[in-house]
Amino acid sequence: MKQRLARLRSILDSLGLGYMLVTKIENVRYLSGFGGSSAVGLVTPTDSILFTDGRYKKQAPAQASGWEIRVYTRSVFREIAGALPAGERFGFEVTCSFDFHKKLSVEVDQGRLEPLDSIVEGLRATKDAEEIELIRAALGCAGAGFEAIRTMVTAGSSERNIAAELNYRMTLAGADGPAFDTIVSSGPNSALPHAPLTDRPLSEGDLVVVDFGAKRDGYLSDTTRTFLLPGADARAREAFEVVSGALEEVLGSLKPGAKASDVDALANEYIAKAGFAEHLSHSLGHGVGLEIHEKPTLSTISTDVLEPGMVFTIEPGVYIEGLGGVRIEELVLMTQRGPEVLSADIRV
Amino acid sequence: MKQRLARLRSILDSLGLGYMLVTKIENVRYLSGFGGSSAVGLVTPTDSILFTDGRYKKQAPAQASGWEIRVYTRSVFREIAGALPAGERFGFEVTCSFDFHKKLSVEVDQGRLEPLDSIVEGLRATKDAEEIELIRAALGCAGAGFEAIRTMVTAGSSERNIAAELNYRMTLAGADGPAFDTIVSSGPNSALPHAPLTDRPLSEGDLVVVDFGAKRDGYLSDTTRTFLLPGADARAREAFEVVSGALEEVLGSLKPGAKASDVDALANEYIAKAGFAEHLSHSLGHGVGLEIHEKPTLSTISTDVLEPGMVFTIEPGVYIEGLGGVRIEELVLMTQRGPEVLSADIRV
Repeated sequence: MKQRLARLRSILDSLGLGYMLVTKIENVRYLSGFGGSSAVGLVTPTDSILFTDGRYKKQAPAQASGWEIRVYTRSVFREIAGALPAGERFGFEVTCSFDFHKKLSVEVDQGRLEPLDSIVEGLRATKDAEEIELIRAALGCAGAGFEAIRTMVTAGSSERNIAAELNYRMTLAGADGPAFDTIVSSGPNSALPHAPLTDRPLSEGDLVVVDFGAKRDGYLSDTTRTFLLPGADARAREAFEVVSGALEEVLGSLKPGAKASDVDALANEYIAKAGFAEHLSHSLGHGVGLEIHEKPTLSTISTDVLEPGMVFTIEPGVYIEGLGGVRIEELVLMTQRGPEVLSADIRV
Repeated sequence: MKQRLARLRSILDSLGLGYMLVTKIENVRYLSGFGGSSAVGLVTPTDSILFTDGRYKKQAPAQASGWEIRVYTRSVFREIAGALPAGERFGFEVTCSFDFHKKLSVEVDQGRLEPLDSIVEGLRATKDAEEIELIRAALGCAGAGFEAIRTMVTAGSSERNIAAELNYRMTLAGADGPAFDTIVSSGPNSALPHAPLTDRPLSEGDLVVVDFGAKRDGYLSDTTRTFLLPGADARAREAFEVVSGALEEVLGSLKPGAKASDVDALANEYIAKAGFAEHLSHSLGHGVGLEIHEKPTLSTISTDVLEPGMVFTIEPGVYIEGLGGVRIEELVLMTQRGPEVLSADIRV
């Protein structure tokens, strides 16, 4: 955490700022270790202060070591204003709400407020060793959960029962809970990339998409596997082959320094060449860490570059109305030597 | 949904506005029925338009009936600007990010943007019949889950195993997942109101706080029960009695039209009189619906009034460092005749 604060201070310094308000809760966690749901951080040239409410008066000091904890009972804005030297300019995160900014402006002159875009998110885009271990640990829980449900994915099991069992096993394996609502979508339901859970029983020949992740110590994992149940027709098998092929193509060519938009284009071209262009519906991937979608973004309009230390998904998918969908999602760590597929052990 | 839109339009009308941008995803769901994670709604005097991304191109039309769906691939801001008649003023929600507002201001003149505070949240504070049924359904799943783990809460079981089982059973009973990270905190851990899950095995004499909720069709439940394991010392039993007493006192006096701050004060006074003032750490309750914390707020500084149709928690608690905590949380529906305790069937 100390190193993270030091990196942040050096960026602030280069921007001519001494002070920064951190409002995004994942950024607060990244810098302080505080794992609660509500707090604002203030980083000063020499100190770091965490403003939180009474629910966390014991938890905050235990988790945010090195931070001064101030429990507020009324206006956090007044507390913040009180902690800032008169006249000092300070940065705030543009992800804060319009309302937060407005209320803060009542307490401190708006001219002192400097909007900062993706500063801490930028630091978070490349993971340090501790973070990579935490993501591996979350992924380990997810993998253990998946291993326990693999054989359940057969005709007759319901989407809901499979998801319930997967969440259960992930938690027993050490997860604090699922990283997001687990998706188990079968047959035609799987044509929706983010299908809601239903009680539909799986049936012969179904495509079954299982998109799942574990949360542990704040860090998340994200992986998808698609099952092709016995009896699947030729079109479903073809879709499966195309997506597998696109994934292989991308992983085979991925190098540190690659432009995220080029990587996205490579997958799209592969899938389009195979005749499935109209069945694409989402971009290729996204960073994963304290948030399920964070930097980098692998999409047509992304300006991100894939650098060593980044952890992101590669998740080509095609979705055919009436028939179903195929998505295969690996969680990848970019290294100096190329991609390491962190989720390689999770096998259908 | 049509009635909700009509109520919104009548408020907008009274504000002299024809158009409103809805950015908070729960507000989008409330008005349209869309259950995905990303969309912006635009309500016009005659139409309603949903801007979303490719992941939802099939799901959005299926869920948001009566809404025109526009799938954007590049800038949602340009899409929005394109849908607004030239020069027309329109409202936006102050919960949107500073950044969203700034980017929107690039596309449309800032003078056309009218900040709106808690308009849809205000509608959502009193639930309609359909919403109350959905909350009851979520609570039903939670209750079924709790019933299945009641006998597990004994010395030897671990916090994690109980939480895993509870989540599992809630999901099997029909939940899409837990409404929030289930809390099972035992012994000294329970002195933290929002304790993270651990592998600690419960031991004799522990206070065990189980705070849980189910999510179903977007709606949430929220309930807490505290177990007093055999062998608990006098201080723990006293804390339990005080919290139970405070809860009873509040429920006995709750009437439609009550000021939320008065209700909060009543509980605090009861607990203070019993000598536990220093062990209070959070406010008395909060509304529950599409969000786990929504209007009304039952706290010292709340200006809310408890009206028929509101669904909220009453959750007095005391937290004693080293010993543990007691919190009992009921989910209450205010009716014309007084409070209905929706969670009454969930018994330790």
